[in-house]
Amino acid sequence: METKKVLILGIDGYIGWALALRLGKKGHEVYGIDNLITRVQAMEVGGDSAFPLPSVEERRNIFKEYIGPIDFIVNDITKPYVLRDYISKIKPDAIIHFAEQRTAPYSMIDEEHAIYTMHNNIEGTIRLIYAVKDNPEIHVLKMGTMGEYGTPNYDIPESPYVKFEYKGKSDMVPVPKFAGSWYHWTKVHDSHNLLFANKVWGITITDINQGPVYGTRTTDMLDGDSIIEGLRTRIDVDEAWGTVVNRNAVRAVLGLPLLVYGKGGQTRGFISLEDSVNALEILINNPPKEGEFRVVNQFMELYSVEKIATLIADATEELFGYRPKIHYVRNPRIEKEEHYYNPERKILPDLGYKQKRFLKDEIYSILTDLYQYKDRLKNFSEWTNVKTDWKNGRNDKNRFDLIKEL
Amino acid sequence: METKKVLILGIDGYIGWALALRLGKKGHEVYGIDNLITRVQAMEVGGDSAFPLPSVEERRNIFKEYIGPIDFIVNDITKPYVLRDYISKIKPDAIIHFAEQRTAPYSMIDEEHAIYTMHNNIEGTIRLIYAVKDNPEIHVLKMGTMGEYGTPNYDIPESPYVKFEYKGKSDMVPVPKFAGSWYHWTKVHDSHNLLFANKVWGITITDINQGPVYGTRTTDMLDGDSIIEGLRTRIDVDEAWGTVVNRNAVRAVLGLPLLVYGKGGQTRGFISLEDSVNALEILINNPPKEGEFRVVNQFMELYSVEKIATLIADATEELFGYRPKIHYVRNPRIEKEEHYYNPERKILPDLGYKQKRFLKDEIYSILTDLYQYKDRLKNFSEWTNVKTDWKNGRNDKNRFDLIKEL
Ligand SMILES: NC(=O)c1ccc[n+]([C@@H]2O[C@H](COP(=O)([O-])OP(=O)(O)OC[C@H]3O[C@@H](n4cnc5c(N)ncnc54)[C@H](O)[C@@H]3O)[C@@H](O)[C@H]2O)c1
Ligand SMILES: NC(=O)c1ccc[n+]([C@@H]2O[C@H](COP(=O)([O-])OP(=O)(O)OC[C@H]3O[C@@H](n4cnc5c(N)ncnc54)[C@H](O)[C@@H]3O)[C@@H](O)[C@H]2O)c1
Repeated sequence: METKKVLILGIDGYIGWALALRLGKKGHEVYGIDNLITRVQAMEVGGDSAFPLPSVEERRNIFKEYIGPIDFIVNDITKPYVLRDYISKIKPDAIIHFAEQRTAPYSMIDEEHAIYTMHNNIEGTIRLIYAVKDNPEIHVLKMGTMGEYGTPNYDIPESPYVKFEYKGKSDMVPVPKFAGSWYHWTKVHDSHNLLFANKVWGITITDINQGPVYGTRTTDMLDGDSIIEGLRTRIDVDEAWGTVVNRNAVRAVLGLPLLVYGKGGQTRGFISLEDSVNALEILINNPPKEGEFRVVNQFMELYSVEKIATLIADATEELFGYRPKIHYVRNPRIEKEEHYYNPERKILPDLGYKQKRFLKDEIYSILTDLYQYKDRLKNFSEWTNVKTDWKNGRNDKNRFDLIKEL
Repeated sequence: METKKVLILGIDGYIGWALALRLGKKGHEVYGIDNLITRVQAMEVGGDSAFPLPSVEERRNIFKEYIGPIDFIVNDITKPYVLRDYISKIKPDAIIHFAEQRTAPYSMIDEEHAIYTMHNNIEGTIRLIYAVKDNPEIHVLKMGTMGEYGTPNYDIPESPYVKFEYKGKSDMVPVPKFAGSWYHWTKVHDSHNLLFANKVWGITITDINQGPVYGTRTTDMLDGDSIIEGLRTRIDVDEAWGTVVNRNAVRAVLGLPLLVYGKGGQTRGFISLEDSVNALEILINNPPKEGEFRVVNQFMELYSVEKIATLIADATEELFGYRPKIHYVRNPRIEKEEHYYNPERKILPDLGYKQKRFLKDEIYSILTDLYQYKDRLKNFSEWTNVKTDWKNGRNDKNRFDLIKEL
């Protein structure tokens, strides 16, 4: 396999760091930018990474020691010239864009958080478009979310455009989307802006709609059977930054009841961190044709939120000898709690992709990894509770109301 | 008719000022905010208002003299607290939001203009949402554009949602849109953000998709038969800010060839300034139900760009005795030059609305009004040319290439 120059925007993050390890291990040239904002924004709302994060200089050194060369600069991609200058200097073959505010509750905290999310995500993507617009040979991979589609009552097409009929006439239109938070809407706006950029400048794009990611490790962090602590990626635990599997796993380790919003019938397409990195590697190695806009639905397993809680409770009981309760709490979000869900998924299988990890197995390594940091996790236990209500924003005071059992 | 408190965002602009005159004349309480940015952004690209604009203090005084009381403050609605504080102070019945960067070529000049347009338009609307979210009794009228829909091969529904079918299953989805410039995309993003805000907070919204507006006067500027110069609204003349009818009328007055992009088959739904103000008055007087999201397609006549040039040439010949040439120039935009176009239009007629002005008549008053300022207009003649190309942005140097006849 030919090696590539890959630029990772958001290299300091959960998926960005894991992907950097993978690409470095496979001999690709790894470049990265990050403004480290997730480090501070998680602390702003009471959280932090479950595993202590090395400083940037430590990360560079550990990477060089175990993986290979890396260029990792600290900067904000929404600032003028940052991306344009860096990209024209290194001339990457592929750029993968993770560098966005990525939590729904954080975007719903209040007006300033909504504004920040719109600004950071939309403007970063516009700057990326202008940095590559004259270089269709660069493959841009944009990380979006399955949440852009909402939960429609029809199968979710895996393509940029779809046929729409109205009163006997028809045309191709962008695949309909209806997001459930400001965060998710910024991803919809990004996708639309990229569709337009593709039309005007012929930019080559893979727009990835990914489901929630779970997992505390990838094989690239291992030395034989044991994990190299310094290579770990961040794992968020709090209400805003911790995603449903990871956060409930933290609560299980802490002996807290697992939280299910409303009836818990909300179904999503999940993917392990290992599988996410595998899929991204395949997409990078197999770019679309120059000028093509490729859409990928990247998830592996469909689960309801309730089913996830049950899996975590089962594994916790088996591992640690106690069974966490499951609390059904008032749903702070505006979403359907029972619905049809059937997204199409063909591009990755066609590229030879095969799922390697399954939640029912992976949950054991997640719980074991977290258990090792139980004392550290105790600091955040309060902040794993529900704090942000879609209608009223964040209220650290009324949290006891929010977690009252239904 | 009961009088209302109406807050106009963008009161210093082309439509905003004309609407203020109308509402004031009808005895409504008029409040307005504007940061005066169009005044300077038009100059940035070589233009200005065809009619000299009074200062804000002059405008306030003239308004008070001829129309009635007014509160007109100078501020930027994208700044924190500006809208929230003002709205909670005055408690308006209706807010009409014009305060956005409103030109497609300006948004396509380069990266910084794209970023500015995204920032200004999206964040202003988010701030408006937060300022009214707890007040569904306030009727928010948001000015969007027919350009949000693009030129689809099907009739354009006049509603927020429409039925979409895929592989035998169906659901309601937002009416599909595909815009043709960053400017137009910000309006799509705004509409989506408003749909979400309506769902979460039940904000009462009229989302108006308006066609290009033409006209140099409204009846509210008249004292008997003669116009009160100080009451005139701004009219833009340059490539970026001048819309197709108004700008070609300026060129006709200056004896320059009228410009048609490509084949000129691009069809749009036009509306006179007088009719736009009439329609807005009706929509303000007839709000939707509390919590409703109403979509209005606001245009009166369908014309191709080529047909408009012919109408202007005919009227110029009749009025001034010379016939301007029509130049077909390379289309700087990415758009279809021949296409189906049939937007639905039912809401306004159902509210008793009737068209009062027709382009073929109105063009005479436009040309006569502009002719009076012929010497002033000469300053801008250079800047009425094509300067911004969708692919390459603005280039003041290669304009001669751009206006070369096909
Ligand atoms: N984690 C998931 O479950 C999941 C699921 C679907 C999609 N995604 C998407 O994948 C991407 C990565 O997610 P993650 O979980 O790794 O999030 P993360 O927050 O851990 O990583 C994002 C990184 O981008 C950086 N960043 C943000 N704004 C920046 C800016 N303006 N300039 C430079 N760097 C900036 C942050 O500091 C952070 O290190 C995001 O776009 C997210 O929306 C994540
Ligand atoms: N003129 C048309 O043909 C037309 C057609 C369809 C839709 N529209 C829409 O109607 C609205 C008004 O158009 P117009 O022709 O009167 O434009 P305009 O530029 O003359 O008026 C807009 C006004 O808003 C102000 N403004 C912009 N950003 C602001 C901010 N952040 N804070 C405070 N004030 C701000 C400007 O200074 C300006 O006075 C726009 O939203 C436009 O997109 C116009």
